[in-house]
Formats: sequence, C-alpha cells, structure tokens
Amino acid sequence: MDDAEFRRVHRRELIEDRINGASRLARQALDSLGAFAQSCSADGVAELRRACLDFAEELQYARPSMAPIYDLVERWSTQVARLPDQDMDGFRRAAARIAQELTDASLRAVDDIASRAARLIGQDAVVITHSLSSTAQATLRDLAPRGVHAIVTEARPGLEGRRQALHLDQCGMPVWFITDAQIGHFVQFASVALVGADAVLRDGAVVNKAGTYLLAIAAQSHNVPFYVCCESFKQAPYTSAQFDLETVDPEELDAPRGRNITPYNVYFDITPADLIDAWIHEDGITHPTDRAPA
Amino acid sequence: MDDAEFRRVHRRELIEDRINGASRLARQALDSLGAFAQSCSADGVAELRRACLDFAEELQYARPSMAPIYDLVERWSTQVARLPDQDMDGFRRAAARIAQELTDASLRAVDDIASRAARLIGQDAVVITHSLSSTAQATLRDLAPRGVHAIVTEARPGLEGRRQALHLDQCGMPVWFITDAQIGHFVQFASVALVGADAVLRDGAVVNKAGTYLLAIAAQSHNVPFYVCCESFKQAPYTSAQFDLETVDPEELDAPRGRNITPYNVYFDITPADLIDAWIHEDGITHPTDRAPA
Repeated sequence: MDDAEFRRVHRRELIEDRINGASRLARQALDSLGAFAQSCSADGVAELRRACLDFAEELQYARPSMAPIYDLVERWSTQVARLPDQDMDGFRRAAARIAQELTDASLRAVDDIASRAARLIGQDAVVITHSLSSTAQATLRDLAPRGVHAIVTEARPGLEGRRQALHLDQCGMPVWFITDAQIGHFVQFASVALVGADAVLRDGAVVNKAGTYLLAIAAQSHNVPFYVCCESFKQAPYTSAQFDLETVDPEELDAPRGRNITPYNVYFDITPADLIDAWIHEDGITHPTDRAPA
Repeated sequence: MDDAEFRRVHRRELIEDRINGASRLARQALDSLGAFAQSCSADGVAELRRACLDFAEELQYARPSMAPIYDLVERWSTQVARLPDQDMDGFRRAAARIAQELTDASLRAVDDIASRAARLIGQDAVVITHSLSSTAQATLRDLAPRGVHAIVTEARPGLEGRRQALHLDQCGMPVWFITDAQIGHFVQFASVALVGADAVLRDGAVVNKAGTYLLAIAAQSHNVPFYVCCESFKQAPYTSAQFDLETVDPEELDAPRGRNITPYNVYFDITPADLIDAWIHEDGITHPTDRAPA
C-alpha cells in the first residue's frame, strides 16, 4: 500500500465506522498517524513532517461531530510540528511515541472517569444507557460486580447497542434490551441515565448519538439523574447554535422509496446543559451549580 | 374451514397484526364477527347466538391495549344478545348488519375527526407523526393539497411508519423519513405533532405505539402542540395506573443472545394528559382547559 492509499484507507475506516464512540475512534486515528509516521516514504524530514501534518488534518475533519478526534489529533500535530529536524528515524520514532502517549492519556482518562462514575452511581443501581461509549462501558464493567443492572437501547440505525449488550452480558451484568422507542416507558425503572459524548460544547450541551436527547428529557420527566462521561479531549469550541450535526448516508435507514420521500440520517443530537446532572471528566465531576450561567 | 378453525385463524390475524392501528383492527374484528354469524354451523338460534358471543369475547381480549376492539365488539355483542329468537337466516342477517353498521359508524368517525383535525392544523403546517393510525392518515390525506409536509418515523420494530410514508407519498405530500431516535432533533422543525391512539384512559392519558410518549415530551419541550385523534370508541375505563401495557414477542427485536440479556417488546406507551393539547374526536375537540381536574 503506498502512502496515498494508506491515507485513503485509514480515513475511510474512520468515516465509515458506525459502531464505536468518539474516544475509541480518536485513538484509532492516533494509531493511524503513528503507523503512517513510521511507514511514510518521504525524502527527508521536512517532507515527512509535511506529509504527517497533511494526513493529520484529513483525519481531524473526517468526523466533524466527534470532538476528541479533532482534539487529540490537534495535540499530535502541535507536538509533531515542533519536533527537531533530527534524523528521519528519530523523527519517525518520536512521532509514533507522541501518538502512543496521547493514546495512553486517553485510556487513563477513560479509567479515571469510569472510577468516578462508578463511585457516583454506587451499587444496586439500574442504569439506562444509549449507544456505545467506551467510557460508559468501562463504568458499567466496574459496576458489574456491585448488583448493577442495565437497560440498553438498540440504537438504530447502527445498532451498536447490540454490541453494548453483549459486552455487559460477558461482564455478567443483567441487561434489559429495548428499542429506542421504548426509552419513554423504561426510563421509569432506571435509577440513573449514563451516556458518553461525542463532543461537549462551550455551553455545556452534549453532542451524542441521536436519541440521547430523548433519553435526557424522559429522564428529567421521571427525576432520573442524567450523567455524561466526557474526557477533557471532548471540549469543542462551539455553542449549540454554532454546531453542525453530522449527517450520514440515509441508505442505512432502508427507507421506502417514493418521489416525495426524503430519508434523513442525522447521526447525532444535542442535549442542552439544563438536562444534565453531572459531567464526569478525568479531573472531577461538574454539577450544574458549578457552571457559570451561560 | 370449520367454525373452530375460523375462530382461531381470525383471532390470530388480529393478534399478529403489527402494522395497523386500533381502529382498523376493530373494524377487522367486526368483519370477522359478521362473516362468522353468516357461516357458523349452529343447530338453532340459541346455539348460534352463544357461538357468536363466545367468539366476540375471544376477539375482545385479543389485543388488550386496543380499546376500540373491546368497545366496538362489546357494542356488537350487546345488540346481538338482544336480537329476537327469529329464524336462523334472519338472525344471521341481523348480526352481519349490526357489524356493518358499527363499521360504518367507525369510518364516519374517522372522516369526522380527519376534517376537524385538518381544520385545526390548517395549511402549510409541518406535521410530525409516529406509527400508523388510520385517523391520522385520513387527516394528512385531507391536508395533502394544502402545502402540508410530514415528518414520519419508522416505528421500530413493526416499521409501520414505512407504510405511512408510502401512503403520504402517493397523496403527493413531501415526507421526511427518520428513525425513532431522531424525533428529538426533528421535532424543532415541526409546527404540530399528530398521532392516533389505541386507547384513551379515564385520566385523559393516551395509549399508543411505543415512542409516542417521547414525541410528546419532545414536542412540549419545543412548544409544538401535540394533538391526538381519538374516536369515542377508544375510551377505556381505566386510569394510567391501572392500565397494563401489551407486551409482544421480543423475537421481533432480533436482540443479541446472552444468558444475562432479556429483550423487551412493550408495544405501547402511555402519554399523560398534561402533554396533550387537543383530543380530537368525532363530536368535537377537547382542550386541556375543558377537562375537569383529575
């Protein structure tokens, strides 16, 4: 595979992934960058650096609603741009090491958040969750031995909730598996709602898989606290009004065909801050009272 | 097909229908009763009447969340119970005629409601709807020439929203077709939410396909009025607390298999009265201010 082909394949994998959450895909982007820095056939350090930064920019904008991809890749680029013009091998090793360090930091953040979230939720809870988040998954894994029980949605159209359910099943956690439309009925049986995030906006609103906003309003209607796991890498420098939600291929819906029918597949939605009871990040937990008024 | 087989087949069709709404299925039950009264091989009027009333009772409880089936079949039974002990042929004809009259009354109610609802909604509206209701469908058909545009959900797991979309497409109405999970994002583009009902409870709450409650809370959050089409046949003598929601075969979800995974397919949910802005029935429109406090 030549350099151009490598970039195309890795960018496409990132774009077409309908299963994994933003943090996991950000780490995948870092892996791609580390591998590219080592294999790229540049003629000299300057050309290698340029190719690396170009590829990074491609990946950064591949999933515009997923803030950690932008953020972690940006951190990588910033550090790679400052690497000394040493020998090629040294540059390659350093670029790969930076990718690995950022991946490690991301994984540590997931672990830190999972511990905090598990402590906050406590034993014997019934946790309702939507879509697949590596952080929410790690939290539930921590809670599996503590009598916790999960309500998991299928999450159409990607159906990544099926993977979430299988993971929890393997951890020995009882799972009630429902359609997205049943959230309204089942939220009354939950003691807490827990989701990951693809981005956290400047106003505290959270971008996550479509359906998250419905879960949040249903939770509020039933006084079920709504918690979001969000690493600091997920901050996006926009407000809800400025943020464009990513729309993906509507073919996934297998919609009926008709000249007047237009299927939409807006993959994410925005849950405003006033529906969120805790933002759990690696440095602590923010509650609504901690936030300055918008 | 002998009588027992006829009853089994018709009852099963009613139970297994995952597409049609409660009013249409109630009319189907009346059709079955009319046909049974004409074909049943009873020995004398007394035996025929008994067989008819037994079959009616079977159908009445076939779909416990669908009030019009209970109500219209109950009306049929009441009238059939009072038919004079005339000759067999006269009894058969009368029983079939009663079924037809009740069907006609149901269809008139649908038309009356559709006209009222269409006047209430008016032209150039954007109507968001969930699941398949013959009354909501008739309303939208009336509105098709008036610049009205629909947002239609797929309605997992039965996917009867696909049929709704095709019907509106044939009426020439522009349809945006979305997953149930996208309700939260798309409700902001709607000017009104319109649904049918499987039952209207004593406290004004509405039983309808799972997902309706989510639409109602999302509509309220965006100040989008939420209207329900509900023939008088849909009144059920229960409150929300007393009402048991029908659960159907969870195999429909194609859930992942695991010893700790339990799929649920609760087909309906309950939308409380305080989320409803108008109950549209054949005799008029009830607004929240018209209702006595619960």
